[in-house]
Amino acid sequence: MSTQRGLLIILSGPSGVGKGTVREAVFDNENCNYIYSVSATTRSSRPGEVNGEDYFFISREEFENLIEKDALLEYAEYVGNYYGTPLAYIEENLQAGRDVFLEIEVQGARKVRERMPEGIFIFLAPPSFKELETRLTDRGTDSQAVIMERMERAREEIEMMKDYDYVVVNDYVPNAVSKINAIIECEHLKVERIVDRIQQDIQDYFVEGAESR
Amino acid sequence: MSTQRGLLIILSGPSGVGKGTVREAVFDNENCNYIYSVSATTRSSRPGEVNGEDYFFISREEFENLIEKDALLEYAEYVGNYYGTPLAYIEENLQAGRDVFLEIEVQGARKVRERMPEGIFIFLAPPSFKELETRLTDRGTDSQAVIMERMERAREEIEMMKDYDYVVVNDYVPNAVSKINAIIECEHLKVERIVDRIQQDIQDYFVEGAESR
Repeated sequence: MSTQRGLLIILSGPSGVGKGTVREAVFDNENCNYIYSVSATTRSSRPGEVNGEDYFFISREEFENLIEKDALLEYAEYVGNYYGTPLAYIEENLQAGRDVFLEIEVQGARKVRERMPEGIFIFLAPPSFKELETRLTDRGTDSQAVIMERMERAREEIEMMKDYDYVVVNDYVPNAVSKINAIIECEHLKVERIVDRIQQDIQDYFVEGAESR
Repeated sequence: MSTQRGLLIILSGPSGVGKGTVREAVFDNENCNYIYSVSATTRSSRPGEVNGEDYFFISREEFENLIEKDALLEYAEYVGNYYGTPLAYIEENLQAGRDVFLEIEVQGARKVRERMPEGIFIFLAPPSFKELETRLTDRGTDSQAVIMERMERAREEIEMMKDYDYVVVNDYVPNAVSKINAIIECEHLKVERIVDRIQQDIQDYFVEGAESR
């Protein structure tokens, strides 16, 4: 019996919605058997960060080499450093039948979708826009003008929601986690992912079984 | 905010796979809030059976009237009695936002699919054909020849699996129930079922919010 290919799960959503918190809670669950997609970056590691766990820390030359070889699912440059998603790591795990979990902002998710439309795209939405504003305000890091800008951007980002497969409202982190797990469980039960295995079983029963009867 | 339309969930699968047991276990869960689709029949009620709960017990004339008015999602005649699924009961509950659960044999499910392709079709499969044979044998009601006939029919019925949305392997009833619940939860999270609600929230925030700011 061949291994069922793993699923690529992409969790995205507007800034401030709590993607990172939800992703951490997904992985905090001791029964979680998803593989976290580790990003590559050219920035230096910070104290406590582990290579291959928090990031793959690589040189600028190595990164540009990956770009050239088309070996990144997506990448972007922020403040002089590259950040990207190595394709090989994802592909190896998917082939081994492991589900790979990617948490990424909306622009990155769009690039991933172009490249791997078979991914399961989950949009994390705020309970309401009013609530998103409250969360951004409570952070205390942004001025009212910046918050209004972020709200406008959230509005644009939510327009992209239509290209996703699922929407999970982040009303309460454990709820969001349980919904994400239900989505992944359910996707594995889709008929096209199971039909081959059952056909094989029928074959075994009627052909080999007939021989032994 | 308008109510999200309920889902029609159809559980089907070959004879002997345990559809009835799994359906009962789904409804035994105290948190279960699905509506069980009650069938109509022309057979007499048996002691303990409750009209409108086990079946809608109706006369032959009433039943044929329903057929004529195209008011049944599907129906069949067994041993001189009609059995069918009244459409009105399902439609009322779906419109009220309630999920309706239908447990039905494979032929009936095919008719339901023609009529309501938007339903969620779940195929309950045996862990293996060998195991299905064991279960049919353990019932002790059928001769070896009848069992082999049933196995052949199961093979044909499993061919129809491809028209379903999901496959749940009935290896262990609580597992099957938990998978069915995950499927229903997940289906509610599909973007097309949520997008309108979020668009409305954006509208409320940016239009009404702007007025109050």
